[in-house]
Order: sequence, then C-alpha cells, then structure tokens
Amino acid sequence: MANSPTGDSVTGRLVRVLETFTPTRTVQSAAEIGRRAGLPRSTAHRIVGELVEVGLLERDDDHRVRIGMRLWELATRSSQALRLRQAAMPFMERVQARVREHTQLAILEQEEALFVERLSVPTAGANITRIAGRLPLHASSSGLVLLAFGERELQDRILAGPLRPLTRQTITDPAALRRKLAEIRTLGHAVAPGSIEEVSTGVAVPIRDETGAIIAALSVVLPRDAATDLALVELHRAARDIERALRAQH
Amino acid sequence: MANSPTGDSVTGRLVRVLETFTPTRTVQSAAEIGRRAGLPRSTAHRIVGELVEVGLLERDDDHRVRIGMRLWELATRSSQALRLRQAAMPFMERVQARVREHTQLAILEQEEALFVERLSVPTAGANITRIAGRLPLHASSSGLVLLAFGERELQDRILAGPLRPLTRQTITDPAALRRKLAEIRTLGHAVAPGSIEEVSTGVAVPIRDETGAIIAALSVVLPRDAATDLALVELHRAARDIERALRAQH
Repeated sequence: MANSPTGDSVTGRLVRVLETFTPTRTVQSAAEIGRRAGLPRSTAHRIVGELVEVGLLERDDDHRVRIGMRLWELATRSSQALRLRQAAMPFMERVQARVREHTQLAILEQEEALFVERLSVPTAGANITRIAGRLPLHASSSGLVLLAFGERELQDRILAGPLRPLTRQTITDPAALRRKLAEIRTLGHAVAPGSIEEVSTGVAVPIRDETGAIIAALSVVLPRDAATDLALVELHRAARDIERALRAQH
Repeated sequence: MANSPTGDSVTGRLVRVLETFTPTRTVQSAAEIGRRAGLPRSTAHRIVGELVEVGLLERDDDHRVRIGMRLWELATRSSQALRLRQAAMPFMERVQARVREHTQLAILEQEEALFVERLSVPTAGANITRIAGRLPLHASSSGLVLLAFGERELQDRILAGPLRPLTRQTITDPAALRRKLAEIRTLGHAVAPGSIEEVSTGVAVPIRDETGAIIAALSVVLPRDAATDLALVELHRAARDIERALRAQH
C-alpha cells in the first residue's frame, strides 16, 4: 500500500479522516475534513469520495458528509467487547432500576477508560460520560478499577505520569495514587469523590473473565453527597451475575 | 489514492478486509482474511498490519486478529442514528418491562432493516435478530414499516423484486406486498405473523422526525400465538414519547 510523502500509510490517513468527526462535529465538508486532518484538499476529496462509495461515510443533501451506519455495523457485529455489553445489559438495567442514577460499563482502550454503555434516568445527577467517550484511568472510578486490577506494566506507565488534574480532587501525586490503587484492591471496588466533576462521586467494581483477569468496570455516578452503600451492593451483585452469564456463554 | 489492478480502491480493499469478520467469525489470521477477501496473501498481510497499527484491528497473543474497539469508537461517537438510539432507550426499556418480549430499534440501511438496539429478557421467545444484524424489508415487521412509510422510489425498487421467502408466510407476491403496505399505512403499524420465523410474530410502529419523515422502526417480537394488543399499545406510546424526546433535543 502506497505511503504518503510524510510517511503515514493510506490506512493512517483514512483514520485521520474518521477522527475529525466528534460528538459535537457530526457533519463536515470534505474541505473542512482535509483542513482538520492535515491533508491536502485534493487528497481529502478523494478519500472522502471513496469512503462515501463504500458506505463508511454518508453524504447529506448539501454534499456534507457524516459517519455512515455501515462503519458501526462492521465495528459492532463481530465485537467481543460488545458481546460483553450484551451479557451485562439485563444486570445494568437492574442496577439502574434500583439505584436510579447513571449506570455505566467501561473497558480499557489505549490506556483510557472507554465507555461502551450508559443507562440513565431523566432525574439522575450530573455526568460527563457518554457512550464511546473516554476518561483518564487515574481520575474516573472506572479507570481506577481498570488500573488497580490491571497489569503491572500498565500501572507503572500511568504512575510515571503525567497525572493531569480534572478537578482539585483528582489524584495527581504518584505515591497517593499507588496507595489508592492498593486500597481499591483491598476493598474490591473504587470510590472516587469529585475527581472527574466536583459535584459527582463515581463508584465502580471490576468484571473478570473465567481466568480472573479484569475485562471491564461497572460503575454508577452519584451526586457528590449521596450515600454509596446501595450502589456498591447492587454493583457487586451485578458484577457477579454478569461473570456468571459470561461463563454460561462459553 | 492508488487503485489495485482489479480497479477497486484501497478503501474498498480495507472494507473487504473488515467485512470478513462476522458474528460467528470474530478472530482470524491474516492468511484467512486474504483468502476470504479475495486478496493476495502479501496484500492481506500489509493491510492487516496497517489496520493493527492504527487500532482498527487488534492482535491476539497467537497473532490472529479481531475487530478493534477503536473502530467502534470512531463509528459511534458522532453517529446521529445512535443519538436516536440513546433517546429511545428509556422508552424501549418501558416497553420491555411491560411486554416482557424482545424490543428492537431498526433503521433503513442499504435497502434492509439494520437493528441498532435489542433488549431481551431471558424468558422471551425465539428471535433471530441481533444488534448490528439485518433483515429484509419485505419480510420483517420493522422492514415493512420502514418500507410502507418510506420513499416511493424505495417501494418501487423492492416491489420489483426479487422477494425472497424466509418462511411460507413471507409475502413474495408484489401485488400482495403492495396491499400489505397500504394496510400498514392505514393502521399505522405492521403485524407480521411468521414471516421471519414460523414461531414468531413481529409487530412494529414507525418513528418520525419533526418533518414527519420516518427515521426508524420500533418493534416487539412475540410468540406466534400471543395477543398483539398490549405490545401495539406500548409501541405506539413509546414512539410518541421518543418523537417528543427527539424534538426536545433540537
């Protein structure tokens, strides 16, 4: 496959085009895409044309383009993480029905917590998370669980920093983070008050595969001053049931 | 972008690689992918390597590859159809809690019904549908609704055939299908007994945008002999609430 003069592959340029689409930028012209992807205008037009032809992008009536459902279909139909999400859904619904706050499922992806599902009720409190959104491992309750029960090498890389603060409560000191991770391993869950948003507390538990390796974090986002007991009981119960459902699939 | 000797673009070959992954074939070697995508072995190895490098494919410990979560993330975070799904979820959960059978959301994609969500309970009956799966427009209750309220040109193309039977109940006669579509428009919903699986009846209602154009079908799959009244009442109610939620987003 031909490489561009700057050394990136055609595949890399395709991804750069797809990456210009965000939750707040869902429709763009080919010229805008080229500028944002750092591609020459003619290259951007050609790549966009090809992506439209194969259905990964869709063209509007006014010739602007958006992400096509074909891309989602290809990404979803054979995904193992989304099979986990499907197994988790009935138990996430139970957590949500009882706790009545945001209930979320996250996996580790490129050293961040990637949220693959989020259930909400209209009355639930503030929550910055969205489906297909990410949060840092050292700041979110889901990320802390993925980190605490994750591989040693991952912990070493994250502890080496930088540990960027999102609020004044975010842990940014490596020694404090190391103590927090040890505490999470002892308790079996993470409580992260105000570390993503001042007004919220995240609570999260690990979900493990049949070998005991962590594969996901199940979490609830509560108002900062709310009691965490009910959420933790329901999360632990749901995690056990999800693990049983996953074993039954095998 | 360079084209291959057979005339398909690099983008087209990338899609052919991604298309070799299916719900029952989630992990493959580069050689298997090449064979299934009709690509020379060396080309398949190079494309797979590039896709792994940018995260659209992920490599297992034994060097086989699977679809990466990065692909799902790029496909999902800016998708308008999945914003619809998010708006629909609370009301789909209500349908599911009351009817206690499979509850599904489908959109029109490349002249088929593409299912973007499915909620199930363990006690629910048979159901061939899966998330990111497709069903023909003339056979499924969701497809019939998308067709009946869809564009005239789409109806003409589908009525021109072929109308493939999935069961003995699938409508395969164009005149009978035309009458069925008129009936669906009069009733405001579709009932499709046994046309996908002999043991099931699908019922579906349209979801419209603020201009009145159909954007999705909301459906329930019941055992063949079950009464459809409760499901239809709950579907119509949910569709109205989802349309209201979508208007409120604007």
